[in-house]
Amino acid sequence: MSKGIASVIGLGLIGGSIAQCLRASDAYTEVVGYDADPGTLTKALELGVIDRAASSETEAIARASLVVLATPPRVTEAQLPALLQDLPADVVLTDVASVKHSIVTVAGSAANFVAGHPIAGSERSGVEAARADLFDNHRVIVTPSTTTSSAALAAVIAMWESAGAEVIAMDAATHDAILAATSHLPHMLAYALVDALSKSALSEDIFRFAAGGFRDFTRIASSDPVMWRDVALANREELLGAIDTFSSHLAALRSAIDASDAEALEQCFDDARQVRESFVARQSARAAR
Amino acid sequence: MSKGIASVIGLGLIGGSIAQCLRASDAYTEVVGYDADPGTLTKALELGVIDRAASSETEAIARASLVVLATPPRVTEAQLPALLQDLPADVVLTDVASVKHSIVTVAGSAANFVAGHPIAGSERSGVEAARADLFDNHRVIVTPSTTTSSAALAAVIAMWESAGAEVIAMDAATHDAILAATSHLPHMLAYALVDALSKSALSEDIFRFAAGGFRDFTRIASSDPVMWRDVALANREELLGAIDTFSSHLAALRSAIDASDAEALEQCFDDARQVRESFVARQSARAAR
Repeated sequence: MSKGIASVIGLGLIGGSIAQCLRASDAYTEVVGYDADPGTLTKALELGVIDRAASSETEAIARASLVVLATPPRVTEAQLPALLQDLPADVVLTDVASVKHSIVTVAGSAANFVAGHPIAGSERSGVEAARADLFDNHRVIVTPSTTTSSAALAAVIAMWESAGAEVIAMDAATHDAILAATSHLPHMLAYALVDALSKSALSEDIFRFAAGGFRDFTRIASSDPVMWRDVALANREELLGAIDTFSSHLAALRSAIDASDAEALEQCFDDARQVRESFVARQSARAAR
Repeated sequence: MSKGIASVIGLGLIGGSIAQCLRASDAYTEVVGYDADPGTLTKALELGVIDRAASSETEAIARASLVVLATPPRVTEAQLPALLQDLPADVVLTDVASVKHSIVTVAGSAANFVAGHPIAGSERSGVEAARADLFDNHRVIVTPSTTTSSAALAAVIAMWESAGAEVIAMDAATHDAILAATSHLPHMLAYALVDALSKSALSEDIFRFAAGGFRDFTRIASSDPVMWRDVALANREELLGAIDTFSSHLAALRSAIDASDAEALEQCFDDARQVRESFVARQSARAAR
């Protein structure tokens, strides 16, 4: 059953990958794309990420039955009011911003808007990195408001399920608190670490002798700076809280080292290993399902 | 040309892997192993990690021409004086502790001792995780003192080169400063992060929704708690300095978030990405050689 035209606005890693999934699913007759950067738009068409390139946002959403807004978080927040005003009430609009409370607030009582966030990504960015299997076996969180229509929610769930994802619904504020801890905080730590080491007097030697663990640890510091700037600003309150919680745990660990408290150190490291191992075991169990 | 018997004391991941490399190299007639834990010793023999299991340290070093001490850092520090006293002056002794200044200090003016540290490892530990290719294409840092004999140094370099490693010599204090920044600090951050998240009210959800980046980031929190306790204690001064440097950079980042300073955030994230990417490019260039 075809559902008409799907439009994707913003053809970076996430938007490009969604467009590829929509093309692969055959649920829509045509996947139209738009990106503010003409080079990205041309590349998306060349790479077969989209069926057709629109020359404006207005052209992109014309006659669409589903519109996916996949711009950086703050752009999404800025675009949303005008887009909701322009779209007929039966056109479903969804987004992918990794911060949800501010987006849901801006969207207000629009019944056709479904706030969403795929928990997937890569340190690579841009349309060249887009892949149809990016969301396969990943989770997508949707944060519908009390006014979101069930038809709109169903359309967005169907889109993500056809991309191979598992969809979970939760409150926008809970989403932001969880993401601050699991994703936004680790990114800030990686950025602060790379920043600190690169400004050290020993930086040349530091990077020369860095081992594999360092490479894993700082992988996320290669992520898109503009997106992370927007995430940090949009989830400011939760992120500040997460940094403070982390800092107090690091300060406690520092005190144990300063006091040469062998028992406290071993206890802390042993607890962390157990928690981390049970996390990995659960992840593996999920992947095996 | 055979060089007689090689002994490995401490058959964890590193000691076990060295024993396997020594067996594979055919440079020694026999590889004798000893571990304070009888279960580990039996397993090492069963797995073919060693040729022969010694029932005591004294038996292990008898008639050896090379002794590798691969116990946790603080055990190495404690064992070193007696071992140096027991060993004939022509028997080469080396260690693998990831902190070197304290070890070199304890070893004093012994000409037959060569302090070493392979920059390789795994979040897995124990003799079961030992592999003959663990050091292949990795770096090993040796920190000889002014009294270390050139014959002893040559024997240890030969051992590591036959394991596929590149050997670099430097001052013990420089080693400790570099390792504090590139390895010990990231481990402490991973431990503090897992500790903070596991004690959060949202911890169940946090671990449920943690994405791949979190998994990479905290991989190192699965490392051996006893070894890391010892590293933190042995490299206390350098590690405290590294934590303080990191904390001040994190505090600066926190201030930029608190002030919603978009420009400063983007600059910081962009700098970190560039530094990290040039590090990865150099690593790849090295791997391709």
